[in-house]
Amino acid sequence: MRTAYHEQLDALTNRLAEMCGLAGVAMERATQALLQADLPLAEQVITDHDQIATLSARAEEDAFVLLALQAPVAGDLRAVVSSIQIVADVDRMGALALHVAKIARRRHPQPALPEEVNGYFAEMGRVAVDLGHSAQEVLLTKDPEKAARIREDDDAMDDLHRHLFTVLMDRDWKHGVAAAVDVTLLGRFYERFADHAVEVARRVIFQVTGHNPDEEQLPAAR
Amino acid sequence: MRTAYHEQLDALTNRLAEMCGLAGVAMERATQALLQADLPLAEQVITDHDQIATLSARAEEDAFVLLALQAPVAGDLRAVVSSIQIVADVDRMGALALHVAKIARRRHPQPALPEEVNGYFAEMGRVAVDLGHSAQEVLLTKDPEKAARIREDDDAMDDLHRHLFTVLMDRDWKHGVAAAVDVTLLGRFYERFADHAVEVARRVIFQVTGHNPDEEQLPAAR
Repeated sequence: MRTAYHEQLDALTNRLAEMCGLAGVAMERATQALLQADLPLAEQVITDHDQIATLSARAEEDAFVLLALQAPVAGDLRAVVSSIQIVADVDRMGALALHVAKIARRRHPQPALPEEVNGYFAEMGRVAVDLGHSAQEVLLTKDPEKAARIREDDDAMDDLHRHLFTVLMDRDWKHGVAAAVDVTLLGRFYERFADHAVEVARRVIFQVTGHNPDEEQLPAAR
Repeated sequence: MRTAYHEQLDALTNRLAEMCGLAGVAMERATQALLQADLPLAEQVITDHDQIATLSARAEEDAFVLLALQAPVAGDLRAVVSSIQIVADVDRMGALALHVAKIARRRHPQPALPEEVNGYFAEMGRVAVDLGHSAQEVLLTKDPEKAARIREDDDAMDDLHRHLFTVLMDRDWKHGVAAAVDVTLLGRFYERFADHAVEVARRVIFQVTGHNPDEEQLPAAR
């Protein structure tokens, strides 16, 4: 039989998963806005950000009520404590998508990115969206196998980020300092988005298995 | 009479304050390492970072044990939940100081910064250290008045950050793209350090007064 505790914890987990989904969609749209200098789409991401902030506040409150009314112990308590920590990570994922959208808006009608690095950001966007989905899946299924996919995506993001810096540092960079500053910040936003998705998965797996995933398997967020 | 709950909560708060202090010292040393291309000092910050990570894990565990054994309710429960969230912010402050130290180390024996922006970073470092101290004070005293100082420092950091970008974007920037990338990332690290200190104060004040400080008084972290 389902207890009130489990029902409330499931509701909280579903809310976290919903936030992850919204953060993924926000990053997908922000990336498109960035690549296509699409102002309405950038503004949609900026407006929609309120939803994530609202869900975030609600999830914190849900966790608090759960602790107050159910006074869970042992593993059940760990699950709620993890949820409180996960809220902060997913909230940040949403904020990073917002930052990307704001750069797209600030540079409009110019594209924020030099043509030369569009491909990197298209790919970083794809990987970020994938990470959002994977974190959502790990939250819902708590499956350590699925966490492995997060590791691959995070490695892919690191590679892209490294290559992007190689392009930036090249003596042939012709796009000036302002574009380099934007590209540096944007690259950092995608990398941090990935770090937070990794952190969500790490916390879920820790909560289920009682130990941190091997550093080899799932690198800690930087 | 002091209850076991209050003793344990005080111990947890003291640990958080200690972490804040260490993060402040780390940022102070990292800034000095950056400005003076001081490799041993950069390496000390990198080595000492383990302390913050260890305290962070202990603080999380303390909070968990407190919830498990004392099952606090109402305001007492809010205090512990806040502490769990504050751990993540202070942990991040330490990580940002670490990032600054790593850039100082990477560029050694060259200074990472062009002479022209040294003054900005000296000042951003001073403000960051001040913010670390203020967050520590707010944690220990829970005094909303002291939180006002955090707001001033955060405004000062924003101003410095804005001016730094003006220097970067100036057509007269002669230091190339690589230096611009470093300055962009470093500026971001100091700004985020300030954001997390603000967030710590915001959470403490929320926990004490039951409502968020007025946006006018204490801006939310970006």
